[in-house]
Amino acid sequence: MLTLFYAPGTCSLAAHIVLEEIGAPYEARRLDFSAQQQTSPDFLSLNPKGRVPALSTDRGIITETPAILAFLAQAFPASGLAPLDDPFAFARLQAFNSYLCSTVHVAHAHGRRGSRWTDDGAAIETMKQKVPQTMAACFDFIETTMLAGPWVMGQDYTVADAYLYTMAGWLEADGVDPARFPGVLDHRTRMAERPAVKAVLAVLKG
Amino acid sequence: MLTLFYAPGTCSLAAHIVLEEIGAPYEARRLDFSAQQQTSPDFLSLNPKGRVPALSTDRGIITETPAILAFLAQAFPASGLAPLDDPFAFARLQAFNSYLCSTVHVAHAHGRRGSRWTDDGAAIETMKQKVPQTMAACFDFIETTMLAGPWVMGQDYTVADAYLYTMAGWLEADGVDPARFPGVLDHRTRMAERPAVKAVLAVLKG
Ligand SMILES: N[C@@H](CCC(=O)N[C@@H](CS)C(=O)NCC(=O)O)C(=O)O
Ligand SMILES: N[C@@H](CCC(=O)N[C@@H](CS)C(=O)NCC(=O)O)C(=O)O
Repeated sequence: MLTLFYAPGTCSLAAHIVLEEIGAPYEARRLDFSAQQQTSPDFLSLNPKGRVPALSTDRGIITETPAILAFLAQAFPASGLAPLDDPFAFARLQAFNSYLCSTVHVAHAHGRRGSRWTDDGAAIETMKQKVPQTMAACFDFIETTMLAGPWVMGQDYTVADAYLYTMAGWLEADGVDPARFPGVLDHRTRMAERPAVKAVLAVLKG
Repeated sequence: MLTLFYAPGTCSLAAHIVLEEIGAPYEARRLDFSAQQQTSPDFLSLNPKGRVPALSTDRGIITETPAILAFLAQAFPASGLAPLDDPFAFARLQAFNSYLCSTVHVAHAHGRRGSRWTDDGAAIETMKQKVPQTMAACFDFIETTMLAGPWVMGQDYTVADAYLYTMAGWLEADGVDPARFPGVLDHRTRMAERPAVKAVLAVLKG
């Protein structure tokens, strides 16, 4: 049995959507970040990182969005969510996900979690100020060089689409007008129409 | 033919070591960061990210260390550098690499590339000051919860070992005494004895 630990408004949305796309049974357990549940002893004993997403499996926990997404694609090959038999195409998918994880997500985090990297309140404010610029630069890069269309990898819908959708949903809150990126905006609109995405968003609201 | 674009002292060391471990023919092309060659028009036309590592293959370029490492393990399965037939074990390996990429590397980068996230000189200084603390926290986490021993994943040497070795080599410059992490230090010592690592370090010095 798979259990996803998630929190609304976070990167865990990507894994959540992919679980729903696959259609295998899973449980989704919400953590309340306003009550700091991600650092509760119970959760830390399961995931010492104190972050979401965390996917609990029969064999143990998996963390890190790119790893969880690749795992789900590999563990459920019939879902066709990654080019599993082509190391080059798989690497391109992994590179996209790694960029989101190590560059885009990190740019976003400077607006909310600046204290990870400095103890200085004024410095944290200057980081927040740069978020619209860094996020726009990331999405400009995605729009012009990475998003093949209609899906991230081209004709085939993959786990990368759920991940891009997750981060594209942060643009407004990060002070970026998504209209600057018509390809990304179109992708976001088409994603929002997928039954799996609708199902997850309904759970998040509920 | 595989061509690795690299620069000394950077995360490209991980891919470089793995290429050498595999033993397939490859070319290594050095970029001179002091001359900003990573942002030269020639290199940008190949890799618009303007960063290393970048692996050029017959089918196109692959960027992002975790993606390159997984690609090499998958494209050369006989090298045995990843648990390719076990999605759970592969995910644990990917999670380790993703943590290095998105958390450890990012912590390190705040000491050198703070201008990515703020335009304020004083803020950049406060980021530099926190690097010893954030890097030590990362390696404490690696030492106590991730490094199975003797290798990262346990008995089997994998691509993750080359990646850990790369980042562990940054500790002194980041103001962290590696003696605080005996498991990591022991790992670093054993890595340095491998013929592939010696061969790459000789190229970097030359
Ligand atoms: N590299 C990790 C990052 C995970 C992460 O930072 N998650 C955030 C939410 S987007 C979190 O749980 N933050 C809680 C906290 O920092 O206390 C991944 O891609 O899964
Ligand atoms: N997420 C990328 C990061 C690559 C990266 O930041 N490389 C650095 C060297 S460690 C670089 O090329 N920096 C050049 C620059 O910022 O101009 C990866 O893991 O490969």
